Amino acid sequence: MENPIQRISEILRDQDDFLVASHFNPDGDAIGSTCAMGHILASLDKQFTLYNPSGIPDRYNYVNTVAPIATVLPNPLPAWTIVMDCGADDRMGEALLGRADETSIINIDHHLGNKNYGAVNWVDPTQPAVGSMLATLATELGIALNGDLAECIYLAVSTDTGFFTYGNTTPESLEMAATMLRNGLDIARMNMLITKQWSENRMDLWTEALSGKELFLDRQVAVTVVTKEMFARTGTTSEDTENIINFLRRLKSVRVAVIFREEGPDLYKFSLRSYGNDNVQEIASRFGGGGHRNASGGTIAAPIDEAKSMLISTIADVLELR
Amino acid sequence: MENPIQRISEILRDQDDFLVASHFNPDGDAIGSTCAMGHILASLDKQFTLYNPSGIPDRYNYVNTVAPIATVLPNPLPAWTIVMDCGADDRMGEALLGRADETSIINIDHHLGNKNYGAVNWVDPTQPAVGSMLATLATELGIALNGDLAECIYLAVSTDTGFFTYGNTTPESLEMAATMLRNGLDIARMNMLITKQWSENRMDLWTEALSGKELFLDRQVAVTVVTKEMFARTGTTSEDTENIINFLRRLKSVRVAVIFREEGPDLYKFSLRSYGNDNVQEIASRFGGGGHRNASGGTIAAPIDEAKSMLISTIADVLELR
Repeated sequence: MENPIQRISEILRDQDDFLVASHFNPDGDAIGSTCAMGHILASLDKQFTLYNPSGIPDRYNYVNTVAPIATVLPNPLPAWTIVMDCGADDRMGEALLGRADETSIINIDHHLGNKNYGAVNWVDPTQPAVGSMLATLATELGIALNGDLAECIYLAVSTDTGFFTYGNTTPESLEMAATMLRNGLDIARMNMLITKQWSENRMDLWTEALSGKELFLDRQVAVTVVTKEMFARTGTTSEDTENIINFLRRLKSVRVAVIFREEGPDLYKFSLRSYGNDNVQEIASRFGGGGHRNASGGTIAAPIDEAKSMLISTIADVLELR
Repeated sequence: MENPIQRISEILRDQDDFLVASHFNPDGDAIGSTCAMGHILASLDKQFTLYNPSGIPDRYNYVNTVAPIATVLPNPLPAWTIVMDCGADDRMGEALLGRADETSIINIDHHLGNKNYGAVNWVDPTQPAVGSMLATLATELGIALNGDLAECIYLAVSTDTGFFTYGNTTPESLEMAATMLRNGLDIARMNMLITKQWSENRMDLWTEALSGKELFLDRQVAVTVVTKEMFARTGTTSEDTENIINFLRRLKSVRVAVIFREEGPDLYKFSLRSYGNDNVQEIASRFGGGGHRNASGGTIAAPIDEAKSMLISTIADVLELR
């Protein structure tokens, strides 16, 4: 059977017009991959439309997108559509999903359990990001990893790997970064642009959430609560709580960090983070939640004090903390 | 002339006993390099003493040091002493400096302007860390970059490059990380250990400093003040303010971040951080301070309100902010 990278390379060379899509509410890998594919197609002198139903979020406004990112689908659709970073086809959004029979899909993804919903499927869960797969594809096509293409790939891979600090970081992705650095990528500038996107509202929410932390079980469990009132007062959304829990984990004594987010009256979503052998997935599952060994979550319907003590006693139980 | 790496390799192979030293108040590169050199010497079956006048700070207690880090010099000193990450020889501390004539020094460093105070000098300012130089040395000696040696090198290089995000990151250092990853280095675990070293006191100081931030000049300048009273009340030191200024720079609107640290009555040290072409060195120099284009600082002797407005009006002046 033909290697999907070669098959995709052939299609990119043979066809003339493409739709390039990713998942709605795009993250760094989705935006970076969409624009990287645009740069690849531009290098090949192809026609293409970049598309995302959510548009490009403000925090990526520094990206050279090569072409505008349309929020509405073209009519008719091109014969081929490249869908990236979508583990399931409904992640591409209702509009495109509803017209998926009008186009042939090239599915490029790194999610475990991808449904192989494309006419061509290149799914590799060992890859840290779709961006790293596009680096391989560009190389296969003889396109150098430099300039705007390198910046888009760096955005994609650095955000999905936490700047090459998560366990999904691969030797190949570090070597790809080395190649791009040799080709002139300004890593310091990119990192500045990627991290320097905070609103004052977000910083206000963070400082309030961090200063409201409580420590339990001999300081091994850190808990913070973000209420609807806090969101409303600071003009933030649940997206702004991202990584507060990881910041709490910086505390040396802490084995489990917890954030509660108020969803409704006496209704709280919780997230748990741990390290190594401390299995928080087992804790979440006792509340009907789930996730992974070191990152999981669920929902508790109870007043916050009760929710806290239920969760803390379960943590103590599962991890055998005193 | 002989290449210093080859000369050092010969000495390591030919001699039997070494003192291994770095600068006092050691950072990640100093501790990582000291211990990495210990692992290299252990691989060569040599005698050695690891030494640092400050000992090993608590925040590195997870490092496999291979041997205890002595805070007192042995008597007599070995014939050869390896001094690392010391741009000037007084950085090794008074005790060793006072006895430098009793031993021959191998000076391994990456600071610009190193004084070449050794009998053998390997000084390379293009290197991001001494740790990356030791990776080259180990390879020259036929020692594989794995196990504890790889962890020590990773600690050294990741802390000096901000986990490969600063402008000093080199392609070679990324490739070295790739090699160590292939050899089994657990990057996620190392990052957890390196970043998870905060005291609650430090987090309290941070939240207070961040919540006390003020924005000036159309939100382009962020200022925070840390007082002696805050240090005393939270049980922290000026070391705990490290990176607060970088956190302030995450604000999208901010071009210059400022932190004032109270040093005495009406006496404040200030630090400035900027990006790209915004030259804060010029601002610092107007107060008799100095530094680099994007990172500089100085001292102002005035009540805090006056110090703030003097600095802010100078920032407005130099950067032509309204």
